[in-house]
Amino acid sequence: MSNQLKQGEFKLHARRDQARRATFMTAHGSFETPCFMAVGTKATVKAMSPEELKACGTQVVLGNTYHLHLRPGEKLIKKMGGLHKFMNWHGPILTDSGGFQVFSLSSLRKMTEEGVEFNSHLDGAKHFISPEKSMEIQMDLGSDIIMAFDECLQYPATDEQIKTSMDLTYRWLKRSHAAMTRSESLLFGIVQGGLSLEHRKYSLAQVTSVDLPGYALGGFSVGEPIQLMHEILPHIAPLMPENKPRYLMGVGTPLDLIISIDAGVDMFDCVLPTRVARNGTLYTWQGKISIKRQEYKEDSGPLDPECDCYTCKNYSRAYLRHLFMSGEILSARLNTIHNLHFYMTLMRKAREALEQNRWPAYRDDCLTRFVRSDKTS
Amino acid sequence: MSNQLKQGEFKLHARRDQARRATFMTAHGSFETPCFMAVGTKATVKAMSPEELKACGTQVVLGNTYHLHLRPGEKLIKKMGGLHKFMNWHGPILTDSGGFQVFSLSSLRKMTEEGVEFNSHLDGAKHFISPEKSMEIQMDLGSDIIMAFDECLQYPATDEQIKTSMDLTYRWLKRSHAAMTRSESLLFGIVQGGLSLEHRKYSLAQVTSVDLPGYALGGFSVGEPIQLMHEILPHIAPLMPENKPRYLMGVGTPLDLIISIDAGVDMFDCVLPTRVARNGTLYTWQGKISIKRQEYKEDSGPLDPECDCYTCKNYSRAYLRHLFMSGEILSARLNTIHNLHFYMTLMRKAREALEQNRWPAYRDDCLTRFVRSDKTS
Repeated sequence: MSNQLKQGEFKLHARRDQARRATFMTAHGSFETPCFMAVGTKATVKAMSPEELKACGTQVVLGNTYHLHLRPGEKLIKKMGGLHKFMNWHGPILTDSGGFQVFSLSSLRKMTEEGVEFNSHLDGAKHFISPEKSMEIQMDLGSDIIMAFDECLQYPATDEQIKTSMDLTYRWLKRSHAAMTRSESLLFGIVQGGLSLEHRKYSLAQVTSVDLPGYALGGFSVGEPIQLMHEILPHIAPLMPENKPRYLMGVGTPLDLIISIDAGVDMFDCVLPTRVARNGTLYTWQGKISIKRQEYKEDSGPLDPECDCYTCKNYSRAYLRHLFMSGEILSARLNTIHNLHFYMTLMRKAREALEQNRWPAYRDDCLTRFVRSDKTS
Repeated sequence: MSNQLKQGEFKLHARRDQARRATFMTAHGSFETPCFMAVGTKATVKAMSPEELKACGTQVVLGNTYHLHLRPGEKLIKKMGGLHKFMNWHGPILTDSGGFQVFSLSSLRKMTEEGVEFNSHLDGAKHFISPEKSMEIQMDLGSDIIMAFDECLQYPATDEQIKTSMDLTYRWLKRSHAAMTRSESLLFGIVQGGLSLEHRKYSLAQVTSVDLPGYALGGFSVGEPIQLMHEILPHIAPLMPENKPRYLMGVGTPLDLIISIDAGVDMFDCVLPTRVARNGTLYTWQGKISIKRQEYKEDSGPLDPECDCYTCKNYSRAYLRHLFMSGEILSARLNTIHNLHFYMTLMRKAREALEQNRWPAYRDDCLTRFVRSDKTS
């Protein structure tokens, strides 16, 4: 579906109400949307090899600018041939701007119009990131999709704070855009505005005044009751440019994904499936389970009888429980393979349902399964 | 080379002085010797999948009776279809007797003629292992090669202690043998006797008075200067039955392996390549290296230019160093793949050299490489 596309082109194949099925082209090939991106914070998706990522259906890997800047540093990665070669992932890579981590991980932040000064969470060393610096880092990494440097407010925030922050984010977007000098990298702008539809529309108008190949929704999943995000998304996502990918940053659970696709979102990323896998929490089509529970001790069945991932095809729940209880590395591996495969299958089935004009039935089946599961979590 | 062999048959293909090239048949297929077995303590070779073990050239996996008895328990594994199915490894499995770990890991041991009472290192619970119990556990696991239950003395020990211990080990061997009721499992006896040739000969005569499909040398690599093992091996290994496999337990470094093959040993196991991999120590044909060293920070070359393992074909030293410094799971994985591949290649090349009548040249080349490397370790 993608052979004829140019870099940065977004081709819509099907839609049902707001939900969309499309292809987006980058310098490292195309990917099909709706798409969930695997988070590879420190130049590796934790516990996974690139071949396993592929086998799970991963199309895009996300790298974290903040972490890679601090260690091993973007200059080293550039010298080693760029992030793709360094980590042996030759598909599309998206990098965030570093802003979110500066605000959530570092200490002693000092924010000015120019940018943010902060101390590394690793060694306390002083660093400074500005829109220009963030673009430079992401271009040095060789990222296919670069995120604009924005301010990500904590929840809750006052109207005044949100307004000030949106205006700053807009000025930083223009500086981010002006700093882009690498034709293989595509810049996405980030819409902020908290949980107010009015603010979101204001920010959307600002951000889309800069013509970019894609736009994101930032500032969700920052501690607000998730119901509030579910409610506002159908009002804001459809207002985003129709012929460009829409990326909801840092989201979410399987339930969040289905609701967001229905609202018109195309791209997602979240540490959830990989992080909880390492803690023994596994997503199945029958709901979420904790593999450490006593009931699985002598369970010779597969983790999820509806799943055809490597883990489910070759190992029993009893073995997965044993590995988890013993703290074995293979536990993190097999659990992560399963959870990522689950997320990627959820998205593949969403794409197929949209192509085959049966999105509402698929959506409703997922909602029934996941609403119940989320309530028991 | 092995299709016509019966279970327990050991077929010699070539020899050069004491060094031998052979095939041994088990209920789960044959393996080629000299052979290094990967240690899979808790029903997993740490950080590895069974497919990766195969790709590295692993033929036999060793399971630890002590650990598996305590968690998850051999009855559970039996219920799940046996250790092969439980861990998804369908090649030969050898299990130790549990004796070594009882003596090295547990507390409050009380040894009697009957067996050993001890407290679990996991939760302090009281356990009792006798020769009969050890055989029962190993048969429940479904092991292809079962080790007799012996006493493994610490180094140093007095002549009196060694003598008493050998006699007990002999009585326990006869009880181990009498307790064997599973035709798919092959029992190996263990020769003890410390570092005295006289004692070793005495124990060898005792142990080989029981007709078994294989014999092992125990009680080495228990803290003695390794030079003493190197010196005694050429005097004791050749006295072991020629038409049976000879297994040197818990050994060793690449240098140890070459010296021991030269003395007539056929089988080995050791945690060394997998354990040190997780600590960033990597074996190469140019010697041992520590991947965390500053000199590899910007090194775009492969770990070992002479190696064709997955790690060396796809990643740079700079990336491996980054993963190690970041504590990433992929570090343990890539390092373990490399070290096991190195060990398995060392053995495959030894087999080829023996087949092609150029063992002395290969041996001497290895000795030159590894003596230097061992000295810098």
